[in-house]
Amino acid sequence: MSHTVEILSVGTELLLGNIVNSDAQALSRELSGLGLNVLYHSVVGDNPGRLKAAVELARSRADVLITTGGLGPTCDDLTKQTLAQCFGRQLIYHPECAEGIQCYFHRMGKEMTENNLQQAYLPEGCDVLDNAWGTAPGCAFEAEGTYVVMLPGPPSECLPMFRERAVPWLARLSEGVIRSRTLRVFGMGESAVESLLRDRMNQLTNPTLAPYAKEGEVELRITAKAATQAEADALIAPVEEEVRALLGHLVYGADVSGLEQVVLDLARERGLTLGTAESCTGGLVAKRITDVPGAASVFKGGVVSYHCEVKAGVLGVSQALLDEKGAVCAEVAQEMAQGARRVLGCDLAVSVTGVAGPDPDERGNPVGLVFTALAAPDGVWVKRLNIAGHAARRDRVRNLAANYALNLARRWLAGLEPVSRRTEGAEP
Amino acid sequence: MSHTVEILSVGTELLLGNIVNSDAQALSRELSGLGLNVLYHSVVGDNPGRLKAAVELARSRADVLITTGGLGPTCDDLTKQTLAQCFGRQLIYHPECAEGIQCYFHRMGKEMTENNLQQAYLPEGCDVLDNAWGTAPGCAFEAEGTYVVMLPGPPSECLPMFRERAVPWLARLSEGVIRSRTLRVFGMGESAVESLLRDRMNQLTNPTLAPYAKEGEVELRITAKAATQAEADALIAPVEEEVRALLGHLVYGADVSGLEQVVLDLARERGLTLGTAESCTGGLVAKRITDVPGAASVFKGGVVSYHCEVKAGVLGVSQALLDEKGAVCAEVAQEMAQGARRVLGCDLAVSVTGVAGPDPDERGNPVGLVFTALAAPDGVWVKRLNIAGHAARRDRVRNLAANYALNLARRWLAGLEPVSRRTEGAEP
Repeated sequence: MSHTVEILSVGTELLLGNIVNSDAQALSRELSGLGLNVLYHSVVGDNPGRLKAAVELARSRADVLITTGGLGPTCDDLTKQTLAQCFGRQLIYHPECAEGIQCYFHRMGKEMTENNLQQAYLPEGCDVLDNAWGTAPGCAFEAEGTYVVMLPGPPSECLPMFRERAVPWLARLSEGVIRSRTLRVFGMGESAVESLLRDRMNQLTNPTLAPYAKEGEVELRITAKAATQAEADALIAPVEEEVRALLGHLVYGADVSGLEQVVLDLARERGLTLGTAESCTGGLVAKRITDVPGAASVFKGGVVSYHCEVKAGVLGVSQALLDEKGAVCAEVAQEMAQGARRVLGCDLAVSVTGVAGPDPDERGNPVGLVFTALAAPDGVWVKRLNIAGHAARRDRVRNLAANYALNLARRWLAGLEPVSRRTEGAEP
Repeated sequence: MSHTVEILSVGTELLLGNIVNSDAQALSRELSGLGLNVLYHSVVGDNPGRLKAAVELARSRADVLITTGGLGPTCDDLTKQTLAQCFGRQLIYHPECAEGIQCYFHRMGKEMTENNLQQAYLPEGCDVLDNAWGTAPGCAFEAEGTYVVMLPGPPSECLPMFRERAVPWLARLSEGVIRSRTLRVFGMGESAVESLLRDRMNQLTNPTLAPYAKEGEVELRITAKAATQAEADALIAPVEEEVRALLGHLVYGADVSGLEQVVLDLARERGLTLGTAESCTGGLVAKRITDVPGAASVFKGGVVSYHCEVKAGVLGVSQALLDEKGAVCAEVAQEMAQGARRVLGCDLAVSVTGVAGPDPDERGNPVGLVFTALAAPDGVWVKRLNIAGHAARRDRVRNLAANYALNLARRWLAGLEPVSRRTEGAEP
């Protein structure tokens, strides 16, 4: 049984390029994780004729149709009406939905305008997908072999609605449950991970094992189908163990949001505090750490020492060193991390200094040359990076440098040598 | 003459949700700006049968077909072969393309593998779109009333290829040139801007005037068609003037990348330096400033004072004040900005302190309460924000707070009162 999916996103703002279709990406990841095969994405505007044609096309080429957008209260919001028409259903008023919408406005302390109650009309015979994250409820029904799920467009509603409401409904498509677990890998490229695991990936059918390349890292998703959650988890566990045995400490976490979350979790467990000193990343490492809710229990702060004056004046980097070697060298990275640790009064500090581009620095250091350091109670470690070729774009250099800085802290906190001796350019 | 466009993106990685389809967004913006009507986005995987069907569908419902992706050297890259087939053309070897590809590898200091030369095969009779940003050339041709443009998938190649190569080719679709200019508006919501300009927008046909809501701001795009660039610009100028007269200093720039760019440009012009002091934004303001290449000539650095110890110890915020009023108040914002100005040795410093969420702070200050301040040679200004309702999500609070901080500096640098007296909550 292999179901095929089309994601149909509705909204002129997508066709104007006003927003990116992040819903389609987020849902595709989730659906793939469930073992459902996404074959098409399509986008049409708020136009009933074109939407209707797109629905007819979708039901002819996929058996699961997931729509995003067009469930709101304005006259542009046509998805429910059009799909009800396509599938020969009436829209029925759901008083319990109306109540939910009124409660939502009450909770937000806002006046509700009458047109919001339009959102309580849903196709007859559907299952209502209650929206705890916004006003427009979603819905789902099966009609003539097509499974239809309608979700609201705003990403902050679409993804939780999918996870919390649509996934249980879609469980009918699989006999049993689907569970997945994502291992996050840092420090090895996608092709290397893939060639290491290719034979196993080809052998495995339940669970499946699939790699996904992400900016500077690799995700490995293990997905199992079974009669119960416990059985699915029991299928996943030995594969996870096997992957961890092969990749060792390159696996930095499972089902986590990123290196920053793992660093924060490890530091919190150990009761340690963190700080940052950044030059070329210009605040990105601190920003990523503070993206995580609750960072305040661990993260004390950071210094963005973009100019050398600030490196010397605030962080105490030696002026003689800066004069002699410039800002981009191992010693400056080291003194920045030590300075941050002292000035911020934290247990661990990471630093980054390098050339983000677009041009080489005034000493001729190339774009992509970066030094990142960790200062800890028991020593200082520096890693040299040389990000070259296609990757040597300003945003990518900065992101990769931030990853490496976080990874130094992660390794130390996990009880590993912060700079692996096997990796290139490790010093000192 | 109104051409209709379909953007067809090819790549299984899109259907797996591994990457977001940012090409479709970027091209849609550009195409809309050219006055071309994008009616459909579609995505199919690296599958010749489904790709062929998608091409046939696209040519039946749009007269301009733009593909992204699938031009590379691996056996997954099927776009050229499949489209050549659909339109009854052979693939022809272009020696000048092969040379270009070889040069590219040489420039990057990399070995070229033989399969890269596959990229030099292009449909017969096409116009080659030379790729200066990567290896795979694009191409364009007209066949039986359909205008076909094939672009590479990586966003760092797709967008410049479109702007530099496809736009001149597409000029044949309009009799003359299309020019657009985007005014950026901060400090007024989309619906207010729209209701202020609605009548004018409805009247105008050449140029057209259209608003686009972006995170916390509004873009107004003026698009003119004319025989020459000069004539198009002459059509745009009076409308720009009219909008500026209506919105005044809420228009912060034209054809700029964001508030951070305007702040950097204004400071550079005046020979002034900048710094930041951030609490709840945790480095985001500094990160955004340093996203802009060349920020180093203006931006000296920043302090991320996430903990009160750092606010007091590094920035010199009064401990008594922190004890009495907590970190989230106008006075702390003010002392943070003044402290940053002193410690970093910069002319202007902005600060942010507030509650980003997800929970209220320990004093019960609600999520979304933010104070942002500017310290300048001639005084200090504080603005109080109360970001409520849907907008009170951690990421959105942080982004809006960063916008307001940058806007304080922008207004001061433009010779305006930093905190407009008309705006709510201005103090002191």
